[in-house]
Amino acid sequence: MDTKRLTAPAAEEILGRYYPVLDHGFVALVDYMGSDEAVEQAARVSYGAGTRKVSQTRGLVRYLRRHRHTTPSEMVELKFHCAMPMFVARQWIRHRTASINELSARYSLMPLLFYTPAEEHFALQSEANKQGRAGGAPAAVYREAVERWEKLRAAASDAYSWMLEEDVAREIARIDLPVSTYTQWYWKIDLHNLLHFLSLRVDPRAQWEIQEFGRVIAGMVKRVAPLSYEAWVDYDLESRPLTRAERDVLSRLVDAKADGLSARAGATVSPDDMKDAGLSLREIRELVEKLQAPERPDFELDFARFRSAEDVAAEMYQAVPGDFQ
Amino acid sequence: MDTKRLTAPAAEEILGRYYPVLDHGFVALVDYMGSDEAVEQAARVSYGAGTRKVSQTRGLVRYLRRHRHTTPSEMVELKFHCAMPMFVARQWIRHRTASINELSARYSLMPLLFYTPAEEHFALQSEANKQGRAGGAPAAVYREAVERWEKLRAAASDAYSWMLEEDVAREIARIDLPVSTYTQWYWKIDLHNLLHFLSLRVDPRAQWEIQEFGRVIAGMVKRVAPLSYEAWVDYDLESRPLTRAERDVLSRLVDAKADGLSARAGATVSPDDMKDAGLSLREIRELVEKLQAPERPDFELDFARFRSAEDVAAEMYQAVPGDFQ
Amino acid sequence: MDTKRLTAPAAEEILGRYYPVLDHGFVALVDYMGSDEAVEQAARVSYGAGTRKVSQTRGLVRYLRRHRHTTPSEMVELKFHCAMPMFVARQWIRHRTASINELSARYSLMPLLFYTPAEEHFALQSEANKQGRAGGAPAAVYREAVERWEKLRAAASDAYSWMLEEDVAREIARIDLPVSTYTQWYWKIDLHNLLHFLSLRVDPRAQWEIQEFGRVIAGMVKRVAPLSYEAWVDYDLESRPLTRAERDVLSRLVDAKADGLSARAGATVSPDDMKDAGLSLREIRELVEKLQAPERPDFELDFARFRSAEDVAAEMYQAVPGDFQ
Amino acid sequence: MDTKRLTAPAAEEILGRYYPVLDHGFVALVDYMGSDEAVEQAARVSYGAGTRKVSQTRGLVRYLRRHRHTTPSEMVELKFHCAMPMFVARQWIRHRTASINELSARYSLMPLLFYTPAEEHFALQSEANKQGRAGGAPAAVYREAVERWEKLRAAASDAYSWMLEEDVAREIARIDLPVSTYTQWYWKIDLHNLLHFLSLRVDPRAQWEIQEFGRVIAGMVKRVAPLSYEAWVDYDLESRPLTRAERDVLSRLVDAKADGLSARAGATVSPDDMKDAGLSLREIRELVEKLQAPERPDFELDFARFRSAEDVAAEMYQAVPGDFQ
Repeated sequence: MDTKRLTAPAAEEILGRYYPVLDHGFVALVDYMGSDEAVEQAARVSYGAGTRKVSQTRGLVRYLRRHRHTTPSEMVELKFHCAMPMFVARQWIRHRTASINELSARYSLMPLLFYTPAEEHFALQSEANKQGRAGGAPAAVYREAVERWEKLRAAASDAYSWMLEEDVAREIARIDLPVSTYTQWYWKIDLHNLLHFLSLRVDPRAQWEIQEFGRVIAGMVKRVAPLSYEAWVDYDLESRPLTRAERDVLSRLVDAKADGLSARAGATVSPDDMKDAGLSLREIRELVEKLQAPERPDFELDFARFRSAEDVAAEMYQAVPGDFQ
Repeated sequence: MDTKRLTAPAAEEILGRYYPVLDHGFVALVDYMGSDEAVEQAARVSYGAGTRKVSQTRGLVRYLRRHRHTTPSEMVELKFHCAMPMFVARQWIRHRTASINELSARYSLMPLLFYTPAEEHFALQSEANKQGRAGGAPAAVYREAVERWEKLRAAASDAYSWMLEEDVAREIARIDLPVSTYTQWYWKIDLHNLLHFLSLRVDPRAQWEIQEFGRVIAGMVKRVAPLSYEAWVDYDLESRPLTRAERDVLSRLVDAKADGLSARAGATVSPDDMKDAGLSLREIRELVEKLQAPERPDFELDFARFRSAEDVAAEMYQAVPGDFQ
Repeated sequence: MDTKRLTAPAAEEILGRYYPVLDHGFVALVDYMGSDEAVEQAARVSYGAGTRKVSQTRGLVRYLRRHRHTTPSEMVELKFHCAMPMFVARQWIRHRTASINELSARYSLMPLLFYTPAEEHFALQSEANKQGRAGGAPAAVYREAVERWEKLRAAASDAYSWMLEEDVAREIARIDLPVSTYTQWYWKIDLHNLLHFLSLRVDPRAQWEIQEFGRVIAGMVKRVAPLSYEAWVDYDLESRPLTRAERDVLSRLVDAKADGLSARAGATVSPDDMKDAGLSLREIRELVEKLQAPERPDFELDFARFRSAEDVAAEMYQAVPGDFQ
Repeated sequence: MDTKRLTAPAAEEILGRYYPVLDHGFVALVDYMGSDEAVEQAARVSYGAGTRKVSQTRGLVRYLRRHRHTTPSEMVELKFHCAMPMFVARQWIRHRTASINELSARYSLMPLLFYTPAEEHFALQSEANKQGRAGGAPAAVYREAVERWEKLRAAASDAYSWMLEEDVAREIARIDLPVSTYTQWYWKIDLHNLLHFLSLRVDPRAQWEIQEFGRVIAGMVKRVAPLSYEAWVDYDLESRPLTRAERDVLSRLVDAKADGLSARAGATVSPDDMKDAGLSLREIRELVEKLQAPERPDFELDFARFRSAEDVAAEMYQAVPGDFQ
């Protein structure tokens, strides 16, 4: 179709194509509005007559993000079609500034698709991080877990199908489906709130399964608004807050002047010094991490993995119990 | 404690007491801010010097609600502690203008409590209402359903406990808990958004289980802000929108003048007339319902049912697998 | 540009064209995402396998709006460029669920354009409606008002320009510009929230000046999502809530059955009866108004009035004081 | 009054007392819900059975804020009564996640109180910061500015009063009041959003006049939730984001290990090195600022300055034109 609207050619290439995530999930960019130029246009309304022109879109987009002037980013909107296990959906929906329409298990029959973690992501409870995973579990434990899941899901599927055949209300029939069951929704969100979502959800402390969705979505954002994406990596994702006490500690090690930075000769700060400055043991560990040179992550999509909407819809429909159309 | 803050004595009576809902759920009002007087105070800032005084709090509160001047209602805030099955939690959380802190199955061990519908609420799929329930199911179907649920939940509980013993990460161990598992959260919301929630959730079209929560919460609102509650029943809950075409139809039947309303002698409107006025078959059924004299519902709480916080906490902890404290 | 996105041809016709409002204001639709089909698509994700197909987009869109299923409407987004007097901007911005970037008087020089009411909209204070206008004011009063405005604005413009020449900080120089000064912004909002805005702002109780903006925006919505627009007129704008007590009163006058409605022979309801039913005097007047057959408003845009972006920008820049570029 | 609700004694001391801001403005804390313990309670619902107890409220509150776990902070709510010039109100209202009821100039008569900057805050336009102020203006310029303001305000007051006497609609009579006119509102916001507001509004880049309000509100927050306040100063207000490139640069100067930090002998980073690392000139200046040891600001309120509600109301009413009550 022909349009006068701002168009992002790299986004058009992937529009409506389905990217697989986990064993039965997906993310598809199904619509978008605006791009980096829309961020710039909105910001420039504030800089009317009598202001100097910032020379480039890139400079302005980076300036805005660095200084947390986030409202212009709200002018870009993205809409996705996604399928994910319910336990992932429950984390995702905590982000309130978004529009969602989800498959209703009161109206509809649920496709009986369940998430099974691959062996390399089946992990033990982390000691250090109370909500995380540690190294791999023994192979025998994984095998038994898979067996138990298979039995449970077969029984849950069987109960669900039987109740539907007995004409039990759908809203009751579904109450024993496990939270590993896949659901799906349309999800629409502006760029500012989406980047905030990504900062939290591609973080290593997020559950690995939702990170997988985050990484694919980040790759899609890169195609809608590449300059905003780059500024987000530099100023949000790979940025770390330097707290009041940490700034104090660092100023003892580094002499920062307009003509350059230099290490103060022989300066050291011991853990005890840091404690005296108000840092807890945990904060000391955090500071050490912040002072490592960061990697620049890449969220490039692998075009070979895209599937068609028809394929994906067919898989969903075949997983619905009984003989419905 | 002594406070200078506005206090609602009827709310103080129930503060921190736990009202059971369904088989293992609860709602407790744990904090509140403001009452009807706070609604009035906020409205009066708009009516400064040079305006006549509305004679009573009640008159003003009712006027505001009738005319959808809802911002003053945002000045009252309520905070609840609630436990509900996950499938109810998933409907509840769609109301975005609220603050929530939920039990995390990544950090914590889940109490193994599951919702079992009572026989009188185990129903067949409604033909008329695609998302609803019709009359009761045969007793034999109910018996088999309960048996299947019991087996499923025993197996799911067993798998969950086994994985915890094997030290599998909690965030993985929980993925096959059914959506009938109880979760819990703190939920804080302002009065305006709460009344909107209640309008949708005590409606007969909502799933019966969430209606049960709505009715208890309505009874608690009545104690925090009784005039706002009464205005909500009159102007929201038992109000019905009269659409453009319906107003057209009604004007043929009723002669409305400043000195009274009278039925137009011999006037009738047939279904065909209504179709000509633009009403669909479904809208005709809806109009007939709207023109019945409504009931005035009562959401009075039964004080005898309240439990203590300690009792409820003990029940939750006993349901956690293993030997934790 | 070529796009795979859903396109609304009637919206493309007006994209980027500026519609004048009041003496120096404007509204331009500068971007949009989705149309009625996007509302349908989002709703259908809830009606997956096993549900009957609603036959048409129109039927579904109307059903959703009638039953306040508003989340699918959030899938459509519109972006406008608008200029309005500051006192209108201050009413407008109360709608919080929108994204705004406004001309900053801290960074930029303000165009010295002020709103002057035309004689036919210069009115006396209403007795009935404490926030409204009554019939016209005497011509002599209008003449003097205009004279006073002209003097005030000349003095305010002069002071502003003088301070800029003396290099006073812009954020201080602007503090005595009157609230009749025009400002401008980009405004992005989803269709659900936009229709709510319009319901409040094209209402006769809104200030006439913001109604003018509302009517133009309504005409633009009609081009982006015509079915949603029509449903909004029928089920929101020209709908009236029938309260609990009013339903009670009406049921005495009308016998409503599945096979048709009929006026109850000889039935009348006097003001005293209505008082007994709980209606205040004010509510009685409101009920009489609700029972009149409504008009169907039309918000058609006059294409001859559109201006180009260049013309409008030139007018703004010429109104900036001094010799800036 | 007696209450079972959580009470903050230091907040009770200032409840309902009016703190002057600028020449005619004020801030009063008029209600609150919760304190640091409510933040802790909400967070602990996530840490149910099977988790270790964090030893203290303070440690938990600080951990949550440092790691941007902000939802528990939403459980605390504060309500203020504030009066400020309209140009300040227009900046303030951009914070959307709050509830506001403002004095309506459509209904009410406006008190004719205007903001006059004191000489020490009457400044020239900054070259470095396009939205800010530089050093003081010449005394003669200030004197002339004050004269112009006085004349403008007298004329605007006179026109407003005259139109009211001629019974012109209030919503029209007010259109030439300057944006220096004081308005007032009730403002209710949760602690998370309030701290975000404060981070932006006590920042030196905010307009000085709104900073003044921010500093007083910060002093009030300190009394409602002192631990959250302290964590905000340490981890938000006096924290600076260290960007990806800045971390890279710093890692060349500092060797950070678990057993302590040490300056790398002889290491320097020149402006050219920083450019090569991707920092713009502006970013280099920003980095130098970040690496200075920060001050710890104090937002203590001066109790001697508090006024009574009655005094403040009387001043407002006396400023209303004409003979109204």
